[in-house]
Amino acid sequence: MAEAKAKALIQVLDGAAVSPPPVWLMRQAGRYLPEYRALRAEAGSFWAMCMDPRMAAEVTLQPIRRFGLDAAIVFSDILVVPYALGAVVGFEEGVGPQLTRYDEIAEIERDPNVWRQKLAPVYDTLRLVRSGLPSETALIGFAGAPWTLATYLAEGGSSTDQRAAKLWGYGRPESFAELLLLLADCVAAHLIEQLKAGAEVVQIFDSWASGLSADCFEEWVIGPTQRVVTKVRKAFPSARIIGFPRGATLEGYRRYAQACGVNALSLDTAVPLDWAVENLSSFCALQGNLDPLLLLAGGTRLVQKVRASLAQTSGKAFIFNLGHGIVPQTPAEHVVALLQAVRAPR
Amino acid sequence: MAEAKAKALIQVLDGAAVSPPPVWLMRQAGRYLPEYRALRAEAGSFWAMCMDPRMAAEVTLQPIRRFGLDAAIVFSDILVVPYALGAVVGFEEGVGPQLTRYDEIAEIERDPNVWRQKLAPVYDTLRLVRSGLPSETALIGFAGAPWTLATYLAEGGSSTDQRAAKLWGYGRPESFAELLLLLADCVAAHLIEQLKAGAEVVQIFDSWASGLSADCFEEWVIGPTQRVVTKVRKAFPSARIIGFPRGATLEGYRRYAQACGVNALSLDTAVPLDWAVENLSSFCALQGNLDPLLLLAGGTRLVQKVRASLAQTSGKAFIFNLGHGIVPQTPAEHVVALLQAVRAPR
Repeated sequence: MAEAKAKALIQVLDGAAVSPPPVWLMRQAGRYLPEYRALRAEAGSFWAMCMDPRMAAEVTLQPIRRFGLDAAIVFSDILVVPYALGAVVGFEEGVGPQLTRYDEIAEIERDPNVWRQKLAPVYDTLRLVRSGLPSETALIGFAGAPWTLATYLAEGGSSTDQRAAKLWGYGRPESFAELLLLLADCVAAHLIEQLKAGAEVVQIFDSWASGLSADCFEEWVIGPTQRVVTKVRKAFPSARIIGFPRGATLEGYRRYAQACGVNALSLDTAVPLDWAVENLSSFCALQGNLDPLLLLAGGTRLVQKVRASLAQTSGKAFIFNLGHGIVPQTPAEHVVALLQAVRAPR
Repeated sequence: MAEAKAKALIQVLDGAAVSPPPVWLMRQAGRYLPEYRALRAEAGSFWAMCMDPRMAAEVTLQPIRRFGLDAAIVFSDILVVPYALGAVVGFEEGVGPQLTRYDEIAEIERDPNVWRQKLAPVYDTLRLVRSGLPSETALIGFAGAPWTLATYLAEGGSSTDQRAAKLWGYGRPESFAELLLLLADCVAAHLIEQLKAGAEVVQIFDSWASGLSADCFEEWVIGPTQRVVTKVRKAFPSARIIGFPRGATLEGYRRYAQACGVNALSLDTAVPLDWAVENLSSFCALQGNLDPLLLLAGGTRLVQKVRASLAQTSGKAFIFNLGHGIVPQTPAEHVVALLQAVRAPR
């Protein structure tokens, strides 16, 4: 039997340049799709949809059916890890995520067996998606990074300046380091279970990696991420891992690429692709980084920018994506135009 | 008559390394000071206080009296430029700034004489401050940068992702370029008038310079800033100008330093000082960049970080400052501790 050709996304994560590059979009299963909004109304809440494997699998597959993207990413949320640790998590419309603050959780759950039970819906979702996915489409699992999860747990929600986490880290560094260790362990366990359930790739979202001094970045982003990657690789030596330290400085990206051992770095919109090709692509594949607001705007500038990105990354291991999640107001036709531009013969 | 020794801040902006470095803090005239809060209550609104020269001058001088900082920065707001152009500006408690959206301004004011009349309270404030300032204290004026002001004018307020301005810039690039030109002209005029009124230094705040692709940064930040600097220098050839493209990438900072002709770059907290010394200090002086949340936290880590910053910038033209504005909850004692650490004999 002839060996099936590896999926394009996997080839790139293994270091190959593929042309046209594989393409998927952060938050591709989301509110910009009418079929998503219909199911979301049925579910009642975002969290209920995350925790219902049938619905979550359906939503994961919607953008694959509509657009034929090269990867599906499991529909879930980064706050499932705080949930596993004992936080109550809620998503009220227009308020943003809210969760129990770490110091108000009655008893922190430390048993990996309980984590696995609580997060079973995510693994069930992955199994359902896997069985319904076209053979050429890769399946991605994900988790929030320890630092980003710490910002939510310290604050009890999102914050623009990560104040509660920074004050904790600055004022009680040992206790904060313990929190990051616990989070790293739970994140690693969650990624491992997703790989067991059929994810072929996992992405670590450090959505709040901006605004940290170099020493804090080292302490709160690099160290904990290394721990996650090491633990995942111990269980799955060939695990393919994408890191996304969103808003890191260029030196932060460089350090992450050198130190964390990921297969690819997802780049935010501000990272110049030519800089990334020159400075990062010897360490790992690159993913990114179109401005989601340019996708929202559409038009000729969108197509020009896609072409420029392809030219800048030509001959390199590159995955086309956005620099951040697609915004809910994006017309689906703009996604079609994006894919046409990425996949146009050159 | 012996020539008076130049103020420390001026010496540094002229390229000299001064030890200990001059120090001031962004938003040093602000809510963390009880004497500020008392006057703010009397004024009724933030905007009223900005536009009352007696009050604004008093508030400008408060942190100088209390702490003996090396520079006073005029108490004002970046939205005075949109106000000069015809926007109605309001600061409702807990809502953030609100202003007339550009496309809803009945008639855009384009007459520099009218701008000067409308912004006369700022110039009157500077004259009042100048007369009350210790001889060793430098006086700083400021304005928002065209791009940052465009984000407010496009949105009618602040926004986390600069959506309205980006959509305008992506979708109607020629019209957006015209807006930036107009803003650059009004910003330059405002800076020139501040220099005439006694400001010895001016700072250009590009508070929303983060998240821009390299080409947008060039188009929306670098170009308009060059226009501002050129215009100011035409009127005041020896004008001392500090630029602050907050959240720019490191390559963005490098480009700004090379292209904009400023005397100093103010660095946000994420910029590694050793990187800045190596890559920027041949172009201009450096200012920054302690995390305001570390100042809020206080303690030994604050003192250690101050010492590390001084060591990293030793022998270079450097102004000690924060990476962003001081936060209202900061205890005044922490500012005292900061100043002691900066000024301790080494």
